[in-house]
Amino acid sequence: MLRLKSPGAERLFQSPALEATFGGGEANVAVSLAAFGVPVEFVTALPPHAVGQACLGELRKLNVGTRFVRLAGDRIGIYFLEAGANQRASTVLYDRSGSSIMQAHRGDFDWKAVFENAQWFHLTGITPALSEETAALSREAMTAARAAGIPVSCDLNYRAKLWKYGKKAPEVMRELAALTDVAIANEEDCQKSLGISVDVDVRSGTLDVRQYRALTARVLEEFPNLRAIAITLRESRSADSNGWSACLNTRADFFVSRHYEIDDIVDRVGGGDAFAAGLIFGMLRYKDDRQALEFAAAASCLKHSIPGDFNRVSEAEVSTLLKGDASGRVQR
Amino acid sequence: MLRLKSPGAERLFQSPALEATFGGGEANVAVSLAAFGVPVEFVTALPPHAVGQACLGELRKLNVGTRFVRLAGDRIGIYFLEAGANQRASTVLYDRSGSSIMQAHRGDFDWKAVFENAQWFHLTGITPALSEETAALSREAMTAARAAGIPVSCDLNYRAKLWKYGKKAPEVMRELAALTDVAIANEEDCQKSLGISVDVDVRSGTLDVRQYRALTARVLEEFPNLRAIAITLRESRSADSNGWSACLNTRADFFVSRHYEIDDIVDRVGGGDAFAAGLIFGMLRYKDDRQALEFAAAASCLKHSIPGDFNRVSEAEVSTLLKGDASGRVQR
Amino acid sequence: MLRLKSPGAERLFQSPALEATFGGGEANVAVSLAAFGVPVEFVTALPPHAVGQACLGELRKLNVGTRFVRLAGDRIGIYFLEAGANQRASTVLYDRSGSSIMQAHRGDFDWKAVFENAQWFHLTGITPALSEETAALSREAMTAARAAGIPVSCDLNYRAKLWKYGKKAPEVMRELAALTDVAIANEEDCQKSLGISVDVDVRSGTLDVRQYRALTARVLEEFPNLRAIAITLRESRSADSNGWSACLNTRADFFVSRHYEIDDIVDRVGGGDAFAAGLIFGMLRYKDDRQALEFAAAASCLKHSIPGDFNRVSEAEVSTLLKGDASGRVQR
Amino acid sequence: MLRLKSPGAERLFQSPALEATFGGGEANVAVSLAAFGVPVEFVTALPPHAVGQACLGELRKLNVGTRFVRLAGDRIGIYFLEAGANQRASTVLYDRSGSSIMQAHRGDFDWKAVFENAQWFHLTGITPALSEETAALSREAMTAARAAGIPVSCDLNYRAKLWKYGKKAPEVMRELAALTDVAIANEEDCQKSLGISVDVDVRSGTLDVRQYRALTARVLEEFPNLRAIAITLRESRSADSNGWSACLNTRADFFVSRHYEIDDIVDRVGGGDAFAAGLIFGMLRYKDDRQALEFAAAASCLKHSIPGDFNRVSEAEVSTLLKGDASGRVQR
Amino acid sequence: MLRLKSPGAERLFQSPALEATFGGGEANVAVSLAAFGVPVEFVTALPPHAVGQACLGELRKLNVGTRFVRLAGDRIGIYFLEAGANQRASTVLYDRSGSSIMQAHRGDFDWKAVFENAQWFHLTGITPALSEETAALSREAMTAARAAGIPVSCDLNYRAKLWKYGKKAPEVMRELAALTDVAIANEEDCQKSLGISVDVDVRSGTLDVRQYRALTARVLEEFPNLRAIAITLRESRSADSNGWSACLNTRADFFVSRHYEIDDIVDRVGGGDAFAAGLIFGMLRYKDDRQALEFAAAASCLKHSIPGDFNRVSEAEVSTLLKGDASGRVQR
Amino acid sequence: MLRLKSPGAERLFQSPALEATFGGGEANVAVSLAAFGVPVEFVTALPPHAVGQACLGELRKLNVGTRFVRLAGDRIGIYFLEAGANQRASTVLYDRSGSSIMQAHRGDFDWKAVFENAQWFHLTGITPALSEETAALSREAMTAARAAGIPVSCDLNYRAKLWKYGKKAPEVMRELAALTDVAIANEEDCQKSLGISVDVDVRSGTLDVRQYRALTARVLEEFPNLRAIAITLRESRSADSNGWSACLNTRADFFVSRHYEIDDIVDRVGGGDAFAAGLIFGMLRYKDDRQALEFAAAASCLKHSIPGDFNRVSEAEVSTLLKGDASGRVQR
Repeated sequence: MLRLKSPGAERLFQSPALEATFGGGEANVAVSLAAFGVPVEFVTALPPHAVGQACLGELRKLNVGTRFVRLAGDRIGIYFLEAGANQRASTVLYDRSGSSIMQAHRGDFDWKAVFENAQWFHLTGITPALSEETAALSREAMTAARAAGIPVSCDLNYRAKLWKYGKKAPEVMRELAALTDVAIANEEDCQKSLGISVDVDVRSGTLDVRQYRALTARVLEEFPNLRAIAITLRESRSADSNGWSACLNTRADFFVSRHYEIDDIVDRVGGGDAFAAGLIFGMLRYKDDRQALEFAAAASCLKHSIPGDFNRVSEAEVSTLLKGDASGRVQR
Repeated sequence: MLRLKSPGAERLFQSPALEATFGGGEANVAVSLAAFGVPVEFVTALPPHAVGQACLGELRKLNVGTRFVRLAGDRIGIYFLEAGANQRASTVLYDRSGSSIMQAHRGDFDWKAVFENAQWFHLTGITPALSEETAALSREAMTAARAAGIPVSCDLNYRAKLWKYGKKAPEVMRELAALTDVAIANEEDCQKSLGISVDVDVRSGTLDVRQYRALTARVLEEFPNLRAIAITLRESRSADSNGWSACLNTRADFFVSRHYEIDDIVDRVGGGDAFAAGLIFGMLRYKDDRQALEFAAAASCLKHSIPGDFNRVSEAEVSTLLKGDASGRVQR
Repeated sequence: MLRLKSPGAERLFQSPALEATFGGGEANVAVSLAAFGVPVEFVTALPPHAVGQACLGELRKLNVGTRFVRLAGDRIGIYFLEAGANQRASTVLYDRSGSSIMQAHRGDFDWKAVFENAQWFHLTGITPALSEETAALSREAMTAARAAGIPVSCDLNYRAKLWKYGKKAPEVMRELAALTDVAIANEEDCQKSLGISVDVDVRSGTLDVRQYRALTARVLEEFPNLRAIAITLRESRSADSNGWSACLNTRADFFVSRHYEIDDIVDRVGGGDAFAAGLIFGMLRYKDDRQALEFAAAASCLKHSIPGDFNRVSEAEVSTLLKGDASGRVQR
Repeated sequence: MLRLKSPGAERLFQSPALEATFGGGEANVAVSLAAFGVPVEFVTALPPHAVGQACLGELRKLNVGTRFVRLAGDRIGIYFLEAGANQRASTVLYDRSGSSIMQAHRGDFDWKAVFENAQWFHLTGITPALSEETAALSREAMTAARAAGIPVSCDLNYRAKLWKYGKKAPEVMRELAALTDVAIANEEDCQKSLGISVDVDVRSGTLDVRQYRALTARVLEEFPNLRAIAITLRESRSADSNGWSACLNTRADFFVSRHYEIDDIVDRVGGGDAFAAGLIFGMLRYKDDRQALEFAAAASCLKHSIPGDFNRVSEAEVSTLLKGDASGRVQR
Repeated sequence: MLRLKSPGAERLFQSPALEATFGGGEANVAVSLAAFGVPVEFVTALPPHAVGQACLGELRKLNVGTRFVRLAGDRIGIYFLEAGANQRASTVLYDRSGSSIMQAHRGDFDWKAVFENAQWFHLTGITPALSEETAALSREAMTAARAAGIPVSCDLNYRAKLWKYGKKAPEVMRELAALTDVAIANEEDCQKSLGISVDVDVRSGTLDVRQYRALTARVLEEFPNLRAIAITLRESRSADSNGWSACLNTRADFFVSRHYEIDDIVDRVGGGDAFAAGLIFGMLRYKDDRQALEFAAAASCLKHSIPGDFNRVSEAEVSTLLKGDASGRVQR
Repeated sequence: MLRLKSPGAERLFQSPALEATFGGGEANVAVSLAAFGVPVEFVTALPPHAVGQACLGELRKLNVGTRFVRLAGDRIGIYFLEAGANQRASTVLYDRSGSSIMQAHRGDFDWKAVFENAQWFHLTGITPALSEETAALSREAMTAARAAGIPVSCDLNYRAKLWKYGKKAPEVMRELAALTDVAIANEEDCQKSLGISVDVDVRSGTLDVRQYRALTARVLEEFPNLRAIAITLRESRSADSNGWSACLNTRADFFVSRHYEIDDIVDRVGGGDAFAAGLIFGMLRYKDDRQALEFAAAASCLKHSIPGDFNRVSEAEVSTLLKGDASGRVQR
């Protein structure tokens, strides 16, 4: 996806310039994993023209494989972003109808080739929100991954401004959840994507962890296929200052990660994707689910310090934070 | 006015570039009201050359009417701005002597035409600070507005670096206050513009609301023509972090608005003007003065998140904050 | 030194642009003193080519004398800087091997001319970290200064990424400390440069002042030549938010400065140099060492609000903060 | 339309930034006429979101009326532009499918209101190229204009990358030409839009005027409704250097304008629209068609000196060039 | 003077940014001479505030002495610049009324100190155009220079947009010419500043050298005090492409310099000042007036390649061009 | 190599910013070939730190393989670039001593692996100019390539500012030329790198092709191993305007390419490398050497239109120019 952001804290078109980078749910996860040193392939459709090619180039630059990207269709999805500040919220304006991925069909991708030697498959709730066909394509991919014996993670993220093709999110997302091994969500996603609600005010700025234990337990109960579900716990005090932590219910255990105060947020877009990437990395690398959760929370904390959708941090940088050094001292 | 600001937190001329936008007290109020959807006409004088024309264009872009702008004179007032950070204050360097508005005279404006169908007239204490003639012009305008039965608001704002033409601020401003329906000020303005003081340390960072009740009562007592006076309560803890609220004394009632912590200020210049615009809008829209005050406080809180003098926020955005959502969560 | 920084909070080469300014320990001190109105000469070696000339020009612009700069050698030292944010640390990448100053030799500078009419000599622990010869050159300079009866201050600052020429820092720095009148350091410098340790966790974010009294006393004991030692006390809570204060042990007294909370740091590089400059200025200007310390702490607090290595603040601006006005209110 | 251009002569996404301005055939003509001081209304459809609003604001700023703009639909048409240089051509990448104007329907606009008091109606061959419905809408508008007794001009401009909805350009454009009073075209447009060809090599860099007399005569013959046809004569020697002139066949006369060498083109996009605006202005202002042609040629020559789609020049500036001063001397 | 230029070829305020540098006739000459290695002192008045200080800093950076700059008054003169392109002229908008230099008076400068050890004094026709007092001040300075036995050069440059204080240019400038040793002008300056005309069309793009011989002879005849007069010969074919040469009449000889075609002008503002500086340098350095003229022509040719008012070229770079190398080959 | 260029036509450090991209002889050839669709591997040494990694990322983005890049050493070579304009030459300032490639040694690269399945090997005269060891490494690589039966091309490019390690260029380069199949050079390279001179004034702006036939014949005579030698013929009329063509002597034939006038050069650095890449591509793709030469000339002509060292053009774009379309018309 092409991300067009007004400079700094400006409102859109306050200046005749846009910061033009690439991003989007699955791409963000791919880039983050690649930055941790994991071999990654990004599977999507992009138009074969100059903008699509630029997106491919950026992915290659960041060590993401593009062998399975299908070059077809006319346009790349675009989102306009205006960064909030203080009490003013960031806003996203989607311009993605008719994008190459929305025009993709079942059968367009050779899943057998894709999943050969793969270790993990991840997708998000954004893709199935685009069209009936992308929802079907998502099911196709997940089914193929499971057939290949590969763990599937799904970030349930709910986008109110999408879901226009006639189906309600839970109709579609519950089917996909039933094909998932590791679910990732925030409290709103559980409610809006799965229809499983929890009594939490997402704007309150404080969170009650017990409710998340209950919520995750209910999701696991309804979806016996799930090995685990992780919930990111964002305390939105302002556009600049958030509390950040996460919890993980693995049926056997319920872990709550360390809590981070992030007080001068540079860019919070992609924070959830950075968490997903951290969790996948952690689960692949560590035996210990708690360690995986902590890695994911620390990785996604660091995302908030980096402009753009992508979490450009190395495993070593996450480890420094995991070891407790959040001092921000100059490294020289 | 032309506002020339050094980029980011740089000191002036640290780089050979200036951000060049337009602003100034009355213009800021006009733009803000236009952004709320109110029809507004801006009455001023601007030079007919390229810089004056650019200012007019910007006002049109932001939906401010320019029918009554007088194109005359040689120069537009300029102010150089250096944004502060942390313990370092922002500084303003005025370069406005000889500006078109300073060269304007009584009789230059057709007040009858201006006030036909008008609902409100607003001016600030900056205009009368420029010259004897602009002070007289201010009186002329206010008198005409009152004659037309239109409520007059006046932001008393005191600018120490102006007031060079021989008169002391209170000599002039007390005359104007006597022609005002709704006065707007901060504690320093009351003291310096009206000579009515209050025992408040404006740099302390904490405020005693009782004193403001007393202060506003005294102003109302001295100026029986005033229907109400509003005071903005800025707790300046640093250039980046302010507390922000306001109070309103309507003789019948004394209201104190909700209090906002603004912790990563993007641009505080124009905050008072955003408050004035919010108050005017609120008084025109709502029956309830308390609601008007809350609207004004919320609107001006949001101003701090926007670069430039102008408060580019809609009524809907202010309403979201009024409803209590200051979470800054991404709207998508 | 040439400082090449990625724009804003970007990682290096996220955009194809670098902010290109000049800086470096001693240059920073020189510029800061010049900004306070003190006549300063900067003694170093720079290449005679366009980059070296640009550095000279910048120093002249900022009122630093360049009469004693030796134009020789091939390259100017470079450091790449990536500004941190929140929990992500800033990082410095040195590229200074083979720089003109590293190729300088004893005898290259006419110290007699340099110290004629001089009032103070300052150097840092960075220069002797570069090479055996720059260490010898540092000793030569300090010895000459002392012979000329000029007070010598030395900022012990330890840079782990330098010190590659075979000697350990204390071997060299203890010799230099023995030629110093006023030492400046942080807790890590004492340990790493002098081998005198203190039981402080520099990443904890809180500091125990008693330990600093003990530490400074030990240093003064080991180096009887020292008239005083100052320690900067940075509480690094994140890349954006630091506590900042300092203490000074003059044998007769132990002073702790006012404490500053700096919550939206613009640029912390050069903060220690700004402190050194403030202390030198204070000791030259005031009789009272406590006043000197407070001036140094306030000056260096303000440094954190200014982009670039240099502390571009006047004595008057420091005095405003010293008088207690940290409100950041707009000056107009 | 939103125009997204890579900075300077860079290829798209060489830097992560895009210059973001507004443009497009009819908008360009409207802005140009407004800059000459003519009251103009722009009739189109734009999405009601932030990008559509920004486009409206820009039009207002440039004195174009927006009363008749229909706020409906989801997206604004976008085009990506990469400026050529020397032997490398500029390239345009359209991303306009599904734009608000493409979704507009017959009956959406109140043509009676639009044409009340109007003096001229202009449209281009780009709108009918978008969809069957926009072609029908174009016919509807032209028919209404003629019914209201208003002269209609049509720029036949042919865009190979559009015309995807199944009809060939001449099928549609010949119908529209039959509703036109003044046609504007280049040699390629005549051939591709009307199917009337001329033996000219548009890449040769030299032009044979006699052929244009023949070509225009043939068009006038086939379309007896036409009062006149103008042809712009661009001699494309490179992306930076073009010859520029135009001819006008009014049946009674055949005029060839002065010839301009434009050697350091700043931005040639919008040159044809600037010509159309100049011709409309000239025909409205002058009795003499030759004068109108010369005004159009001079105005569009100046367009090549201005970044962006819009021809931001005044009537006075065109007149200076018409009087023969192309010296570019500094006006001071 | 502060020069505020719109970026690139944009019209003023097309973007909300201005390039902010310093310049102005005499300053340009001073900087250019300093770049050739000549010790220079700039004598002017500047306001003591941040903008004035920034101007001083820039001069120091470029090796211009500022000992004699008087810090007084309120404002620095400003000019807005819009760079032309092709057939569109550059335009200058002056905003200098009330500047510090306009407020300067006879007696403000200690000419005796200024001219002690000086070798040359230069001023331009811009200063006496500002006000009666600056004209008197110019006379005072020239008289003092002559009294000190120092050659005086005067660039007669005529600025139509100045000269508003009631006197006609020749009234004032003829007096100053009578105090001059070396006059510098273009054909328009001779006519407008001295009232001595020549039958030349300055917009024709071709020049007849014989007329310049006649013109200069007439000037020398009318002003017997003049040792020589130089005329710059700009053939303005467009804003981007000029022919450039100069002639010098020393009574004994009449020299015409080499002719330069400058085809992609970067910035022509300051070209005349670069010529003046080159001529002064040449006359000081060389015995041969022809050599001086050639140096001046080459130096000012190079000016056209540099953004900003200042001619940032070294003597060595001018010499390379003088030796005939105008190939622009990369030096590596 | 890291290329640090001052913005636009500014002199170095006129603004505190540098455009920071990557380039250098062999890298430029690799990127250009990759842009034509050829699989390429770049063999070099880069430091493993952030700047080296950024260089690798950029190469990957542009489809250049980095499998054989050795991550070792401390620094990446840097060159500072100041773009010339008109009569002012561009200048390059090298800062590459101690770079990773300069510290590389024979044996560091596994040439057997490198040349497995390779079709061509190219290197330039810049690498052997750096140090005795890089010269030896160059010989090692060429010998290995020949042993593997792979054609070797060598761009003889001579850099006066390098060659500091004691040997004269011909001593080294003649040895390398004896290991080359296809030599590429300009007239100066032949003279300075091989000691074979030709009576050509490289600054004259006009070229006598017969001399190039003689020159290339002499080189082929002296180096019987050479299959062909190509000479680029740059007519440097100014920094902005060059004639551009090339000739190729294949013993059997002597071809002179089409001649291109390039009149508004965007960036000429890398033009020779673009030619080399075009020639290699042409020789691999076409049977006909004349076609190869024409492809190379056209490709390198287009390079002059693109900012940065790299020739970001596709085979299709070169083909368009080859077919004779240099009109620069907008493609839409």
